[in-house]
Amino acid sequence: MDTYQPMPSHVPVVVVGAGYAGLSAALELTDAGTPCLVVESADRVGGRTLTEQRDVVIDHGGQWVGRTQHHLLALAERFSCPTFHTYETGWHLERWSDGSLARYTGAAPEAAAGIAEYWEVAGRLDELAATIDIDDPTSSPHLEEWDSVTVRSWFDRTVVSPDARRRLDLAVQGVWSTEARDISVFHLLFYIASAGSFEQLMETDGCAQERRFHRGAQSPALAVAEQLGDAVRTSVTVLAMEQDDNGVDVHTDAGDVRAQWVIVATPPPATARIRFRPPLPVDRARWLQRSTMGDVAKVHVVYEAPFWRAEGLSGVATLYGEGSVGVVFDNSPDDASVGVLVAFIYGDRLRSWSASDQEARRQHVLETLTRLYGERAGAPRDYVEKNWPEDAYARGGYTANPAPGAWFEHGARGWRTPVGRIHWAGSETASRWYGYIDGAISSGQRAAHEVLDQEVPS
Amino acid sequence: MDTYQPMPSHVPVVVVGAGYAGLSAALELTDAGTPCLVVESADRVGGRTLTEQRDVVIDHGGQWVGRTQHHLLALAERFSCPTFHTYETGWHLERWSDGSLARYTGAAPEAAAGIAEYWEVAGRLDELAATIDIDDPTSSPHLEEWDSVTVRSWFDRTVVSPDARRRLDLAVQGVWSTEARDISVFHLLFYIASAGSFEQLMETDGCAQERRFHRGAQSPALAVAEQLGDAVRTSVTVLAMEQDDNGVDVHTDAGDVRAQWVIVATPPPATARIRFRPPLPVDRARWLQRSTMGDVAKVHVVYEAPFWRAEGLSGVATLYGEGSVGVVFDNSPDDASVGVLVAFIYGDRLRSWSASDQEARRQHVLETLTRLYGERAGAPRDYVEKNWPEDAYARGGYTANPAPGAWFEHGARGWRTPVGRIHWAGSETASRWYGYIDGAISSGQRAAHEVLDQEVPS
Repeated sequence: MDTYQPMPSHVPVVVVGAGYAGLSAALELTDAGTPCLVVESADRVGGRTLTEQRDVVIDHGGQWVGRTQHHLLALAERFSCPTFHTYETGWHLERWSDGSLARYTGAAPEAAAGIAEYWEVAGRLDELAATIDIDDPTSSPHLEEWDSVTVRSWFDRTVVSPDARRRLDLAVQGVWSTEARDISVFHLLFYIASAGSFEQLMETDGCAQERRFHRGAQSPALAVAEQLGDAVRTSVTVLAMEQDDNGVDVHTDAGDVRAQWVIVATPPPATARIRFRPPLPVDRARWLQRSTMGDVAKVHVVYEAPFWRAEGLSGVATLYGEGSVGVVFDNSPDDASVGVLVAFIYGDRLRSWSASDQEARRQHVLETLTRLYGERAGAPRDYVEKNWPEDAYARGGYTANPAPGAWFEHGARGWRTPVGRIHWAGSETASRWYGYIDGAISSGQRAAHEVLDQEVPS
Repeated sequence: MDTYQPMPSHVPVVVVGAGYAGLSAALELTDAGTPCLVVESADRVGGRTLTEQRDVVIDHGGQWVGRTQHHLLALAERFSCPTFHTYETGWHLERWSDGSLARYTGAAPEAAAGIAEYWEVAGRLDELAATIDIDDPTSSPHLEEWDSVTVRSWFDRTVVSPDARRRLDLAVQGVWSTEARDISVFHLLFYIASAGSFEQLMETDGCAQERRFHRGAQSPALAVAEQLGDAVRTSVTVLAMEQDDNGVDVHTDAGDVRAQWVIVATPPPATARIRFRPPLPVDRARWLQRSTMGDVAKVHVVYEAPFWRAEGLSGVATLYGEGSVGVVFDNSPDDASVGVLVAFIYGDRLRSWSASDQEARRQHVLETLTRLYGERAGAPRDYVEKNWPEDAYARGGYTANPAPGAWFEHGARGWRTPVGRIHWAGSETASRWYGYIDGAISSGQRAAHEVLDQEVPS
């Protein structure tokens, strides 16, 4: 990872991006004996995972792993990165805009307003999602119909109870890190199909939020990068690439390198900033350009102890209506040596919250936590924010969502079809677990095998 | 326009892009005595206007001027670029997917299927558009509601007659060069307000399609560039910009230049490819990234004479349903020395047409024209295509449309608010005639005055 070495003049494969997708592609190539060079704009690897080792491990980005996320589990095992079950024992809280607070266990309060219809809609979404082939999503007979309608319109038209709509809106914010107006019904359904079910996306036990990493979710990425050694160069930005019949000239701000194949494993908006010669085919260019990063901030608040547990609370809370915070989780370390709450802020509410100054933002979050967990929540020993839209490299999180119409108009050829010697990885190119670390890993492995199938000389 | 001169090391103002916006900004600065340098990626000026001087003048891009487009009319007068009235004498044709052909005069056949409801909807669109303040569009009390719904959904919900819906779909394709699923109702209404009325967008006499340029619509741009002389550098691409308190370092592929102010006058997707340091504010970055170029191709077919005129036909045709061509106009020169038909192909129909090979594309267009104008239309003396999504610089046309949600979420601060010393021009930043040459010119003038108001030393 020494950035002061000169760039090699030739390498069989250049991998762009050292998030989980790029690192996994490079690992797969290296395992197969094919040399590669990974270049990464940021001064670190891990992409949209970022673990800060304070006196407590803070995961600013992606943090969970679920039992059907086999690629991430296998990588974690290979590199000895142990996990533990997400804490969710005790009462969860729901706060409504009228100030009322409900306690519940399980996925949602049994008799709350809108809850019956919420489950009906969830069931309907699963049924519709099951009709989509995740390896060939644009073959769906309903593609045009579902991709022409925003999720907002669909909820407004089909969901009767305003409370059910509020629950569904928060589900969209929490899972897609965007607002229901920004994505189409087709993308919503594809994403559900990609994860397996609506429940997989939403829940903890057996689902996407099941386990956390003792050393943080970036730790497997750091271990892969260490193994790859000098093959990973950070603080190197790819500005342009020129492809000819025999290879690709990759132009970076640290010099040029000639490759026989390239795997681009950056988020779609970052890929769209690279100047490709010849220009990318229209479908691929438009697909990239119409995929927009989500909007999420994570705020970690650290206490001497997870005091809410003693009161029978799980630390899980969902907040509707007024206020910026959408969801709260207990993010304490497994040994509970300190207490950590993480507040997620999404979409519209993130835009208003991030327009305030730092003191006002902090005060707002602490007031929210105090209403949920009492006075002690107002006096943390540490408070730390990560606003992903302002991250200079990722420029958003968790994932990029295509705009309404993009799947129908450009998905068939634009989603991930290789362009000559340029192959595509990244979580947004995954069939399974699109948008998740697991999808990033499988996409990198897939792209590596696309290249290895081309008889790369070692 | 000599690209072999070295770049100057300092200049008060750098203008990025030599379309009508950038050229107009530079002209305004020059008129005020402030030196500037215009840099343009392409090897020509004019942006999305492109006139080819064959034995007949062919306007591959923007071509019309209407009587309320005062900025373009004034520029044309200053640089002595005469215009003539668009030919529309005689019967217009409408072809339906069942093969039936109707003749009519005026804006639409009086008694055709769906026509009454079409006019009702047009009237309703005008009423709703009139509530939007084009200088402050995001102040609309209906912003969130209208920006959350695609035009497709709105038509499906509010328009009863399928024929009226087909007419409205073609109107969206013809004016916005996109499909109804890709834009929000708010953007549709803003765009109508920006032009003045739905009729202004759709019609010829007194409206946006009223007149053409004898020497082509690029001719005023060429004249401005000639006057600016060495201040315009073509074939120079801006790769990055670094802004500090005192100025902006503009990094190009032909060297670096330091400016006190910068006016960026490129289409939003091109602007989004520039690497800004510090990164643009999230609202501006997202606005740019979520603005997608439209999809249009123009096909010119040249005959010995405008033979359809003798048969009482205007050359204007609109085509619904099967086939690729959406609209046809008589694009002959004013003296009718030869006959020229121009076929417009949009959106979904452009995507299927452009997937065929050149011979199949040509055959399809000629067959279409033959069905409209008889056998003689099948034997042209010339045939020439311009598919704008494949243009390496514009990458689409006529204009960029923001995705659903983008006006609501990012429009207030992201649409055109200057970022320090960087100011924004381009047709997509115009209040009046957004998307048109006229809007490009006024936007360039506005940006120039924003800079001149800052006490630029001359």
